[in-house]
Amino acid sequence: MGMKEIPYKIYLEEKEMPTQWYNVRADMKNKPAPLLNPATLKPMTAEELEHVFCAELVQQELDDTNPYIDIPEEIRGFYKMYRPSPLVRAYCLEKKLQTPAKIYYKFEGNNTSGSHKLNSAIAQAYYAKKQGLKGVTTETGAGQWGTALSMACAYFELDCKVYMVKVSYEQKPFRREVMRTYGASVTPSPSETTNIGKQILKEHPGTTGSLGCAISEAVEAATSVEGYRYVLGSVLNQVLLHQSVIGLETKAALDKYDITPDIIIGCAGGGSNLGGLISPFMGEKLRGEKDYRFIAVEPASCPSLTRGRYAYDFCDTGRVCPLAKMYTLGSGFIPSANHAGGLRYHGMSSTLSQLYDDGLMEARSVEQTAVFEAAVEFARVEGILPAPESSHAIRVAIDEALKCKETGEEKTIVFGLTGTGYFDMVAYEKFNNGEMSDYIPTDADLEVGFKGLPQV
Amino acid sequence: MGMKEIPYKIYLEEKEMPTQWYNVRADMKNKPAPLLNPATLKPMTAEELEHVFCAELVQQELDDTNPYIDIPEEIRGFYKMYRPSPLVRAYCLEKKLQTPAKIYYKFEGNNTSGSHKLNSAIAQAYYAKKQGLKGVTTETGAGQWGTALSMACAYFELDCKVYMVKVSYEQKPFRREVMRTYGASVTPSPSETTNIGKQILKEHPGTTGSLGCAISEAVEAATSVEGYRYVLGSVLNQVLLHQSVIGLETKAALDKYDITPDIIIGCAGGGSNLGGLISPFMGEKLRGEKDYRFIAVEPASCPSLTRGRYAYDFCDTGRVCPLAKMYTLGSGFIPSANHAGGLRYHGMSSTLSQLYDDGLMEARSVEQTAVFEAAVEFARVEGILPAPESSHAIRVAIDEALKCKETGEEKTIVFGLTGTGYFDMVAYEKFNNGEMSDYIPTDADLEVGFKGLPQV
Repeated sequence: MGMKEIPYKIYLEEKEMPTQWYNVRADMKNKPAPLLNPATLKPMTAEELEHVFCAELVQQELDDTNPYIDIPEEIRGFYKMYRPSPLVRAYCLEKKLQTPAKIYYKFEGNNTSGSHKLNSAIAQAYYAKKQGLKGVTTETGAGQWGTALSMACAYFELDCKVYMVKVSYEQKPFRREVMRTYGASVTPSPSETTNIGKQILKEHPGTTGSLGCAISEAVEAATSVEGYRYVLGSVLNQVLLHQSVIGLETKAALDKYDITPDIIIGCAGGGSNLGGLISPFMGEKLRGEKDYRFIAVEPASCPSLTRGRYAYDFCDTGRVCPLAKMYTLGSGFIPSANHAGGLRYHGMSSTLSQLYDDGLMEARSVEQTAVFEAAVEFARVEGILPAPESSHAIRVAIDEALKCKETGEEKTIVFGLTGTGYFDMVAYEKFNNGEMSDYIPTDADLEVGFKGLPQV
Repeated sequence: MGMKEIPYKIYLEEKEMPTQWYNVRADMKNKPAPLLNPATLKPMTAEELEHVFCAELVQQELDDTNPYIDIPEEIRGFYKMYRPSPLVRAYCLEKKLQTPAKIYYKFEGNNTSGSHKLNSAIAQAYYAKKQGLKGVTTETGAGQWGTALSMACAYFELDCKVYMVKVSYEQKPFRREVMRTYGASVTPSPSETTNIGKQILKEHPGTTGSLGCAISEAVEAATSVEGYRYVLGSVLNQVLLHQSVIGLETKAALDKYDITPDIIIGCAGGGSNLGGLISPFMGEKLRGEKDYRFIAVEPASCPSLTRGRYAYDFCDTGRVCPLAKMYTLGSGFIPSANHAGGLRYHGMSSTLSQLYDDGLMEARSVEQTAVFEAAVEFARVEGILPAPESSHAIRVAIDEALKCKETGEEKTIVFGLTGTGYFDMVAYEKFNNGEMSDYIPTDADLEVGFKGLPQV
């Protein structure tokens, strides 16, 4: 078989784009544990879930048997506007590192939301539209998910209510304005628009909000008005399903050039990007067809996989959502101010948690300054300014490539470059000025979070 | 001939990318007028220009006979990291407008500099490196050119000194930090680092700077230290030459699907994007092979083509640069606060000025609120949040498509989408809040600028 020259960027043609999502749960022997009703501690039924989520998304959430689910025509049309995303051969980074390793990255930042979040946002908006809803509600912290959802709702002309953590609303006015430009209403949380918001404001008059509080408000806003549902950008099984488009495209692009990766790396907050990227490869591993190493990278300041417990826990700090079995630091764990806002989540996707617990995936935690060093090194040779979240994966990809340099091994490394850092310049400024520091929680710090775990 | 289905995005393969730039001056009967030495009023010689610019770039600046110039291997390597840029069929915009017109846009925003500026920045950095220089200096207003040059210099490990207009330095800290992340030194202008800066600070202690002042400082910084040259991101012939990669790719992509455009539209500040986009098509028109309509779009607040004079003028408000013959409002014209910073230039590329004067190109001016209306309409259906500059072209593309709706004509419209608006959210916020207004200079306003034109 002749060696084809590998271009800098491998693009699929439109006709090569996936027409179905891949549901990795179908191939798992040990299925992820079901969501529990916090009142009864029994598995949530479809009917219960449909009060909060769109009906068809509930089906996807509960479906752990069908390996492939058709991507509706309308969603494929939207995907064609910004997908396929490029699989890039990092020739310049390889040269800079002088490594024999071959490095590839799947770049999901080439859309206005700036990240992979749009892949699931458009799907969730589509099903809401199909169900005849007026709109959807959600929460956002740093704003990537909120931006993606605003774009998706604008496309389907759905109303979009975003509860944005007040401190971000004030400190990140640019993200807020992108959402408003796409027609979303953005409310700083806590707010006077919900009962839970009013209560929190009464108890904590000066609070700048939290993601947990914003979730509670968004859920209340969805369930208290006719024609609305709540949507979520990570953690859930349905989100991993939609994000499988990342892995399917990656695999198709690699297959075109007969490339088999040795290691696949992704950053992990709630797990949506990593789960999406590795799903089809994990499927091959689960079916015994091929073997790969998978590495989840998390911040040392919020180490849910590497130092958390595998237990039932609340998905939100406000404790209004169902219980999920996952690797968790406890819903009461308050991560320190790490700039990778998207990775500051106490838990982890149930699916990824089960795969990790079964020894099918590795996890590694990295410190913030080392992450930004990798980000800047990458940016200067590969051009793209990466998001702090994505840079966690860059750090470990570089580390693995440097190991190859020592051993002389020509490993093929693939990592997920989930997004761009254009709205993260405050963090870069801190790094550029030498003012960034690291923080690793002590065992005692973690004990505080673990003590709050529910008794299930 | 069978009709091929046209995908949402037409990508060229790497092997289809241009290997030569196209120099439209070679095919012009009336050549653009030469730059004049402001002291002698005689054409600038290569020797004189080489005090300020890199030697090989001076050759390109003066060459109006060779139609094709090889793109060096090293530049083509860098281009492969972010090029080819997609030519997008605006299916969703067409549907929204219900127009029979077919709309395409060449999207140059998919790189960290956020615009087409990188195409020339990497070329200019390459020639500086080849000449053995230590570094380059430049000025930047809004920061797109400075960002592009910082990225290019990081790639070739050249020192990069950017003089950033003080008001932007303070109000646009994010752009500043992107440049610093790529290793550039960014100095607010006027500064104490140059004689001209000191002088200006002495005369105007509270000044927030201007582009003209920053140019003067950058030129002084380049010419007063060994091993440095000054580089410029627009207006010059060499820049149009490098930017021809936009038009060459566009033409190659259209040719693949046997598409012939009727109208080609671009925004015009100094002319680098428009000149690059239309060059190869203009070449066909100049050689009598085909006919196209070309429309340059400028802000009504800074109407150099539509209301300016065709005359010799200073390229910079500081009057340290050579004189160029161009459509100009006078180097003393102060445009009102229009948010499209990249279009607030008093003059216009000499090449484009000559083509316009010869009746080979049209020009249209549009008002700011109408531009942002078009920007938001576009963003909501096509996903991409456009830069205010680029949105001038969107406005006219939509206007032309709506005319087709009235007449029923199926015209093919191509426009240049030069960049993204992620760093322009202050302007979007103003628009979203209904606080944006229009400004059109009176004839008396323009007379002030015309009075300052040099007597040549």
